[in-house]
Amino acid sequence: MMLQAARSLNLQCGVLDPDSLAPCHIATHEFSIGSLLDFDSVVEFGRDYERVTTEFEHINCDALAQLEADGTIVYPSAAAIRLIQDKGLQKQFYADHGFPTSPFRLIDDRNALTGHTDFFPAIQKLRKLGYDGKGVYKLKSSESIPNAFDAPSIIEKWVDIAMEFSVIVARNPQGEIQTYKPVELIADPDVHLLRTLISPARIDPEIATHARDIASDLASQLKIVGILAVEFMLSSNGDLLINECAPRPHNSGHHTIQAAPYSQFEQHIRAVMGLPLGKITHETNAIMINLLGKPGHSGRALYRNLDQWLASPDVFVHLYGKKTTNPFRKMGHVTILSASFDDGLKLAAEIQASLEVVSV
Amino acid sequence: MMLQAARSLNLQCGVLDPDSLAPCHIATHEFSIGSLLDFDSVVEFGRDYERVTTEFEHINCDALAQLEADGTIVYPSAAAIRLIQDKGLQKQFYADHGFPTSPFRLIDDRNALTGHTDFFPAIQKLRKLGYDGKGVYKLKSSESIPNAFDAPSIIEKWVDIAMEFSVIVARNPQGEIQTYKPVELIADPDVHLLRTLISPARIDPEIATHARDIASDLASQLKIVGILAVEFMLSSNGDLLINECAPRPHNSGHHTIQAAPYSQFEQHIRAVMGLPLGKITHETNAIMINLLGKPGHSGRALYRNLDQWLASPDVFVHLYGKKTTNPFRKMGHVTILSASFDDGLKLAAEIQASLEVVSV
Repeated sequence: MMLQAARSLNLQCGVLDPDSLAPCHIATHEFSIGSLLDFDSVVEFGRDYERVTTEFEHINCDALAQLEADGTIVYPSAAAIRLIQDKGLQKQFYADHGFPTSPFRLIDDRNALTGHTDFFPAIQKLRKLGYDGKGVYKLKSSESIPNAFDAPSIIEKWVDIAMEFSVIVARNPQGEIQTYKPVELIADPDVHLLRTLISPARIDPEIATHARDIASDLASQLKIVGILAVEFMLSSNGDLLINECAPRPHNSGHHTIQAAPYSQFEQHIRAVMGLPLGKITHETNAIMINLLGKPGHSGRALYRNLDQWLASPDVFVHLYGKKTTNPFRKMGHVTILSASFDDGLKLAAEIQASLEVVSV
Repeated sequence: MMLQAARSLNLQCGVLDPDSLAPCHIATHEFSIGSLLDFDSVVEFGRDYERVTTEFEHINCDALAQLEADGTIVYPSAAAIRLIQDKGLQKQFYADHGFPTSPFRLIDDRNALTGHTDFFPAIQKLRKLGYDGKGVYKLKSSESIPNAFDAPSIIEKWVDIAMEFSVIVARNPQGEIQTYKPVELIADPDVHLLRTLISPARIDPEIATHARDIASDLASQLKIVGILAVEFMLSSNGDLLINECAPRPHNSGHHTIQAAPYSQFEQHIRAVMGLPLGKITHETNAIMINLLGKPGHSGRALYRNLDQWLASPDVFVHLYGKKTTNPFRKMGHVTILSASFDDGLKLAAEIQASLEVVSV
């Protein structure tokens, strides 16, 4: 989706991806295969380019720093990604800079959990490489400890959540900032994956404004260039807390392709290029659902009942082109533009029940 | 732009283009260099694909017919393109099927013009390979004859034009049709190139409906699969006449990327794939201007004052990525979404005066 946005600005792009079958392969002429976590492959790839960005924070930051030292423009910076990719450093940054977040502690391994049972119930999160609900574990009581991760982690005090929502911020090197309206996130309770997004989130306008201000401030203080997705929790007693952030176009901004004049992908590309951001003067009400691989299906992907939804007005199907499906794999998304949330959510439920990603 | 649309539908595409520097090069992994007019290069390219389409009607139709005979799906068909690419056959088709068009005669060469001075003033159009004002010549009187084209042509009776407008039609193999609102076309008087587009055209609703019906009927009778752009003339005495048509996404449909829920490029791709068309339930008022190479400039392209317009709300800049500019070469376009035509046209004039494509 970033490559589609780059095309209108006439940018010659290359992609580094570990997977020779990566979907982006078909949308760019220059494609390199290599691990994002391998120092040499990132440096060797990046040194051919004037500018480098990433759509995934789990990347070798020493390599990005090396590219910066060698004169390549890296946005967001190696330092910003290094901080965010470690959930411990990220959380500490919130605490140190006065951003609202839940209480937390840092631990080195599973054994250390026995000294923190006073902090339970809590959520354990791996400091590194976790995403999309992976690397997250609920510590209900000391009985949960044997199944906890045995790795450097943070434990966060359990919060009773009334709503989760996120704010997508774009920031360019000149410091210009644009935010989109906060969007409500409804996750699948079992797999911790975003299932349904509602834009704008059904929250008080003051909370929305406050969250946008916090997200803008965070992007500035992290000196982000590109998109920063800031996930918030609204606790059942009304506290607004930052859950975590991601330094890249984010699943909670996919609706912006149809619902806003300039998408998060275009904003990211503009920022990385040092161009002015697009002005988000208006947004259309939208529902976005992820197309997840159906449980029990692994193999070459087939999309059931696709035609019906392609023909449905104000329904926008995006397929990512992943060759194979797996249970709950993100295979695409669907955006529904609807003035009425009731109508949109009804349609979303119908699509979720009928547009299935199965294996052949 | 077609490749951008194809991406969301997860289609693996290759492109055949005579120019190794063609802009599409950067948006697709598979790229072949070859002439579209050469039988062998079109057949050799096309036989690797399940489906073939074109964004330019000046292509070897014998090659397309060969591909069809060999089992490749070719949309629009070789027969439809063959008819349209010859302005003589195209005009005859209108006459034979009762479509309103201006009186015309067919001639084989310049000498034949001396027998048709009773028909002057008239417009001479080369039967083949003309486009964008190329291959068009005004026959004012017999004194115009020495400078006329010496090739098979049609001559069309001169029409006093009150307005030129076009209708973009999409048709899929199932026969489903969608049209966009008629758009008003304001050409540069010197170079006969579209300068400014206004959507919707400022015409009576009945004329708009009539034109959409004619365009839909023409697409059906030509058995078009994909986009058909139908250009109309409204004469100063109120006659509605078809000027000509093009079997592909068209300059007069570029605004649909922002102004309609599904663009002409997405509709074309859907039609070619045999998918349902997107429903055009609403369109936003839009102005579209072409970014033409500045006269006196040839060479590597530079875009003056680009940043200013990227930062302007509801202004959408599309650069095509052509490496070199030439006088009046189409280098990109800008769409302006504006409820008020007065405001939009004022902005369009400012952009035309400031966003220049020059050579370095």
